[in-house]
Amino acid sequence: MARYKVIIEYDGTDYVGFQRQAPEAGPTVQGELESALAAINRREAVTVFGAGRTDSGVHAAGQVVAFELNWAHGSETLVRALNANLPPAIAVKSAEECAPDFHPRYSAKGRRYRYSIWNAPARSPLRERFAWRVWPPALNVSAMADASARLVGRKDFAAFGTAPDEDGHTVREVREARWETSGESGLDFYIEADAFLHRMVRSIVGTLRQVGAGDLTPDEFGAIVDSKDRSRAGTTAPPQGLCLIEVLY
Amino acid sequence: MARYKVIIEYDGTDYVGFQRQAPEAGPTVQGELESALAAINRREAVTVFGAGRTDSGVHAAGQVVAFELNWAHGSETLVRALNANLPPAIAVKSAEECAPDFHPRYSAKGRRYRYSIWNAPARSPLRERFAWRVWPPALNVSAMADASARLVGRKDFAAFGTAPDEDGHTVREVREARWETSGESGLDFYIEADAFLHRMVRSIVGTLRQVGAGDLTPDEFGAIVDSKDRSRAGTTAPPQGLCLIEVLY
Repeated sequence: MARYKVIIEYDGTDYVGFQRQAPEAGPTVQGELESALAAINRREAVTVFGAGRTDSGVHAAGQVVAFELNWAHGSETLVRALNANLPPAIAVKSAEECAPDFHPRYSAKGRRYRYSIWNAPARSPLRERFAWRVWPPALNVSAMADASARLVGRKDFAAFGTAPDEDGHTVREVREARWETSGESGLDFYIEADAFLHRMVRSIVGTLRQVGAGDLTPDEFGAIVDSKDRSRAGTTAPPQGLCLIEVLY
Repeated sequence: MARYKVIIEYDGTDYVGFQRQAPEAGPTVQGELESALAAINRREAVTVFGAGRTDSGVHAAGQVVAFELNWAHGSETLVRALNANLPPAIAVKSAEECAPDFHPRYSAKGRRYRYSIWNAPARSPLRERFAWRVWPPALNVSAMADASARLVGRKDFAAFGTAPDEDGHTVREVREARWETSGESGLDFYIEADAFLHRMVRSIVGTLRQVGAGDLTPDEFGAIVDSKDRSRAGTTAPPQGLCLIEVLY
């Protein structure tokens, strides 16, 4: 029996999130992975641990999972065998044996997310599967960039989310928070932190949209960060723009 | 009654192509547009003419259509009314009144297509809806670029497709054919011509893949272009990588 660290990518559109739930809730990424593992493990159940519990509709380009498995055919064959048993919306990118005490969530030193906005007057069927369309107005990206800088540092982010565990604290270290533009209408927000609160990125992006729309100044955004008051943040941005890019160890 | 020129975008994944077909064949983009038009025209039928008959599974960022309609509320309201009646996979980008003799297909001076390849060992659920994954091998992009240059000019492209009309000729003028790379794995082929033969872009890309794989030299590719022999071209590339970017007037 060895432990494996596996990097996966998924289109979260048709899943109710990463974490296994009661079957009537709908399909989950963890459920699909565990089914694929059982299929290559003589129908014996294998439990998968993930680095981050992405919400319903959220995507991942670099989610990390781990599990224990008796597998005599090498890592490359494991990648192929799992991909052959996974639906098209989920793929294994790589697999490697790891230390017996490796845990995707507790061993992680950081996470990177991207949130994509499509800032255009017309609907865009080729973009909206993976982006939040915001219109009107044309967003003020430099104001959003200025506000985003207020996020960087070790702070109590209680204004933007709740701790994943009961009695968990809400202090996190944001290492990077910046916007990139692509073409006339594409806005991508990249944020890296040691860990994130529940809904934190989507709550931050929803509030930054208010800055881009001129409803909040960057200073007012900074005051919301400092307030630790959940009721002062803006609407939570929808899930389809969010993608877990990378987990750092 | 005025005539309107309308630019549309669609995710072709779930359609059997642009052109209306017998209902049992499956949904078409033209069929959805005509349903949306009937809905805003007191259930009276409106016929839509398109610039290009994209195949099943092919996408468009800039397909052009025209139709005649009694509409008293202006072009911007027409865009909104149509979008409210179209499914999420199809969107109207713009609408304007046009000359009574404007025809999206016969008035067109050129078309631009993009074909996207994802050249990576692992499946990519976030890319494969809009790209053809090719692996192995790592493709030789400079050989593919060299071969692509042999396409430019006014030539008989009978090797790469059939004329859309019976007894139609197969001479077309390719004005541009070039590859762009994005990141490690993304390869985008841009091709512009006055018009295209049926399946021409996908047949060209399937044959250029053979050049990238080292199975054909750029000179051998040039000889296939000159041969006018349909049996010498490579496999037709799959539809999901293809997108009609723009129609030129």
